Amino acid sequence: MQKEREQPISDTVIKRLPIYLRYLTYLERMGVRTVSSYQMGKELGQNPAQIRKDLAYFGEFGRKGIGYEVGYLIKKIRQILHLDQLIPVALVGAGHLGTALARYNAFQQDNMRIVAIFDHSPLKAGRDVDGLKVQPMKELKSTIQEKDIRVGIITVPDYAAQEVADQLIEAGVEAIMNFAPIIIHTPPNIRVHHADLTTELHSLAYYLRQPEYMVN
Amino acid sequence: MQKEREQPISDTVIKRLPIYLRYLTYLERMGVRTVSSYQMGKELGQNPAQIRKDLAYFGEFGRKGIGYEVGYLIKKIRQILHLDQLIPVALVGAGHLGTALARYNAFQQDNMRIVAIFDHSPLKAGRDVDGLKVQPMKELKSTIQEKDIRVGIITVPDYAAQEVADQLIEAGVEAIMNFAPIIIHTPPNIRVHHADLTTELHSLAYYLRQPEYMVN
Repeated sequence: MQKEREQPISDTVIKRLPIYLRYLTYLERMGVRTVSSYQMGKELGQNPAQIRKDLAYFGEFGRKGIGYEVGYLIKKIRQILHLDQLIPVALVGAGHLGTALARYNAFQQDNMRIVAIFDHSPLKAGRDVDGLKVQPMKELKSTIQEKDIRVGIITVPDYAAQEVADQLIEAGVEAIMNFAPIIIHTPPNIRVHHADLTTELHSLAYYLRQPEYMVN
Repeated sequence: MQKEREQPISDTVIKRLPIYLRYLTYLERMGVRTVSSYQMGKELGQNPAQIRKDLAYFGEFGRKGIGYEVGYLIKKIRQILHLDQLIPVALVGAGHLGTALARYNAFQQDNMRIVAIFDHSPLKAGRDVDGLKVQPMKELKSTIQEKDIRVGIITVPDYAAQEVADQLIEAGVEAIMNFAPIIIHTPPNIRVHHADLTTELHSLAYYLRQPEYMVN
């Protein structure tokens, strides 16, 4: 039974769902049929009670003593995240990172699919990236509207990121994934996720063993 | 005063510190001297009480009515994360993503610095990426030991990721950032962060406005 949504579900819960989905998809590929929250927790380094609680926000997906049916849970999480529908994505910035993302995405056969790539540089316009032609910025608005694109990925240098975000929003994009190492400002109805690759690396440094001369 | 560490600080706290650091660095660049937890929370979309609590694990860095001194807090967070020392990093996989990361990292003039790049392909060996020569895999172990590298970044295709992780660990690496869309298995004393770019994108889809025919 779907729970009544009395208050919005916290971002931290939503951020964990794709991690569960990735693990479940891996299990499915391995031919595993059911999984317990205990196993999931162990593999993902998370508290099993937390996993059960996260999933219970959306319904009763597991059964006592059996756990979760992998295929069913995948289907449910995909629905929750709206990944059961095709979500066209625009990417701006056809440098190394943009190219890597376009290829990465295509490789995964995902429902979130990069369907348009733009770049400021006239040198890059017309170039083929994984079957897509890089388009000039002047085509951004019309293409986003034609293809009903509501998600944008920004992989331009930091000094260009805010302007690109403004253009994406003006064209109708609702959600932005920003890879530029800068905070971009958007209206409150626009969702922005920052994927600064440096921050991920920085939290890793904390766990390095320290030399013995350091105070305990 | 540094608090006694009775139990390890949770991973979620550690993952937030680099986000605070990024924002503080941005403020410093803008010439801002002090910041309140309220301002930080507003800008980062987080609860100010949570920010105060996170930082209080490590000491009393703020002052009532004034807030945090930006430069001082940057220094403290860098110490906590061990970013006050140079941390040499090895990258394996000199494709588009690896190349983007190497350039990104160098661009930031960070203390976590990619100092060696490896690739399986003989076609890539010897190629210059941002001032570093791509090395063949057979040089991995000796280079990691010579340069005292304890952090590895994996940007190879998924089928190659586990083997690369094993080689990195055997060479002495303690912490791995894995960009391959696969779960890699490592001994318990090795820290692995998965940076699957797809999961970040997936949590974004949740926030898209749904067509009106959907049930409220």
